[in-house]
Amino acid sequence: MLRLRMDVFPGNEVPLNAQMWKIVLAYDGTDFHGWQVQPGLRTVQGELASAIEHVTGERVLPQGSGRTDAGVHALAQIASVALTSPIPQPNLLRALNRALPPSIRATEATHAPPGFHARHSATGKQYEYRIYRGEICPPQLARYVYALAWPLDVRAMQQAAPLVVGTHDFSSFAAVDPDRATRMAANSAIDNVRTLTLSEWRDEGDLLIYSVRGDGFLHHMVRNLVGTFLEIGRGQRLTCDLTGLMAARNRMEAGATAPARGLFLHSVSYADSSATLD
Amino acid sequence: MLRLRMDVFPGNEVPLNAQMWKIVLAYDGTDFHGWQVQPGLRTVQGELASAIEHVTGERVLPQGSGRTDAGVHALAQIASVALTSPIPQPNLLRALNRALPPSIRATEATHAPPGFHARHSATGKQYEYRIYRGEICPPQLARYVYALAWPLDVRAMQQAAPLVVGTHDFSSFAAVDPDRATRMAANSAIDNVRTLTLSEWRDEGDLLIYSVRGDGFLHHMVRNLVGTFLEIGRGQRLTCDLTGLMAARNRMEAGATAPARGLFLHSVSYADSSATLD
Repeated sequence: MLRLRMDVFPGNEVPLNAQMWKIVLAYDGTDFHGWQVQPGLRTVQGELASAIEHVTGERVLPQGSGRTDAGVHALAQIASVALTSPIPQPNLLRALNRALPPSIRATEATHAPPGFHARHSATGKQYEYRIYRGEICPPQLARYVYALAWPLDVRAMQQAAPLVVGTHDFSSFAAVDPDRATRMAANSAIDNVRTLTLSEWRDEGDLLIYSVRGDGFLHHMVRNLVGTFLEIGRGQRLTCDLTGLMAARNRMEAGATAPARGLFLHSVSYADSSATLD
Repeated sequence: MLRLRMDVFPGNEVPLNAQMWKIVLAYDGTDFHGWQVQPGLRTVQGELASAIEHVTGERVLPQGSGRTDAGVHALAQIASVALTSPIPQPNLLRALNRALPPSIRATEATHAPPGFHARHSATGKQYEYRIYRGEICPPQLARYVYALAWPLDVRAMQQAAPLVVGTHDFSSFAAVDPDRATRMAANSAIDNVRTLTLSEWRDEGDLLIYSVRGDGFLHHMVRNLVGTFLEIGRGQRLTCDLTGLMAARNRMEAGATAPARGLFLHSVSYADSSATLD
């Protein structure tokens, strides 16, 4: 039995008698090499798989709504996993939290419809980026903010933020992909078009918070957007350049990638049809 | 010159041309082996000494108001150090924060009278202990609280807290000292008498916070007081036992030592005569 499930570890095959679960996770990404399992490295997905195996004896790989990079945090990452163990919902939640390190908490564990998949079923995501603007960043915040005492024209950043809302090709904000030319030649349909429905900077005293919501995000896209808005805030770039920057579809045009530690996966949205079963 | 100062590294000799400094420090103690320098281990005092040497070239050992144990945090630890470098006050503060890791911040650096000594001049200290009572402790809080979902009779704890205020022999709450019998035989004047002026539990939603202020604290005293109050909160001990427990002057009588991660050195007080020079 254990052997069978080990065979399907990396796959998506779901045993007939399995129950699909939706697990909501909060984590401090500082000490993890990102979400995705990697041999010999501590990752959030790997810790969750170990906790599930510890609790149920089932060796399965939970799927996330998407990867988060090393050092990026989550307030509500979503994972899906099919389990054959007939464990009651509150018991799985409690048992997972006993097995997980304190830097990862399962905040909900509920039954989901059979076809639910944390990534494929997701219809949108929201991220938050936190900048600490005070002169001296308190040690308890240091892991969770980008400390930047440099003066910023926050109004200019607030005016620029909504300009990226809508449907655009965000290639200028995608991480440079060394294989891109090859992949483009092989498949001209590489799609860097995404639709953003929220993009705003909020000034909350010592914290300056960027919120962005969309149907999907390219690798490093939020951190590159933040880096570009920071250049506008520092007067190194004009707000009106943003439109041309997007049209260029060239990563070299946009700002530097902001540090991972300020970034939080805030929430993931799903259509009603994939809603949690209770 | 450097050689001369290296000779006095562990001592208190102050060169005639030196200026005494008072440095206020906030730190996240999680990743340090406590305050005090130890060969080969990362400590707060060691990091501060390195930062001072990096900034001024002076190899001196800053004195703290007292040691904090591994994992214990500080909101305002005080350090004193004599420096010959004629560095302006704001510059020392900024330069120290550039040299220190983000988990240690100097929040003030000011001139102090020649006789000022962070420990000898201190007249009192306040500590805070934070308990997280919610079912699921957020990962961002996990390093800074003791997560304890167990039901507690908070009113009983609040009634018991003031009973330790006043001048008492706190031997029952001192860390067990393996050499105590020997030292007692050699010197009957081992003094475990301390005066507390504040001892209270505050219920702040998911947080339960203990504040204690006194003229001095024995090793592990705050964490042993907290452990004892928690036994009262769990109904394992009666409030009225506290007086007998203090009279016993025996560490075996009191509660378990509460975990380091919930403890903060909140502040240190000094008499006006050792006040900061501006």
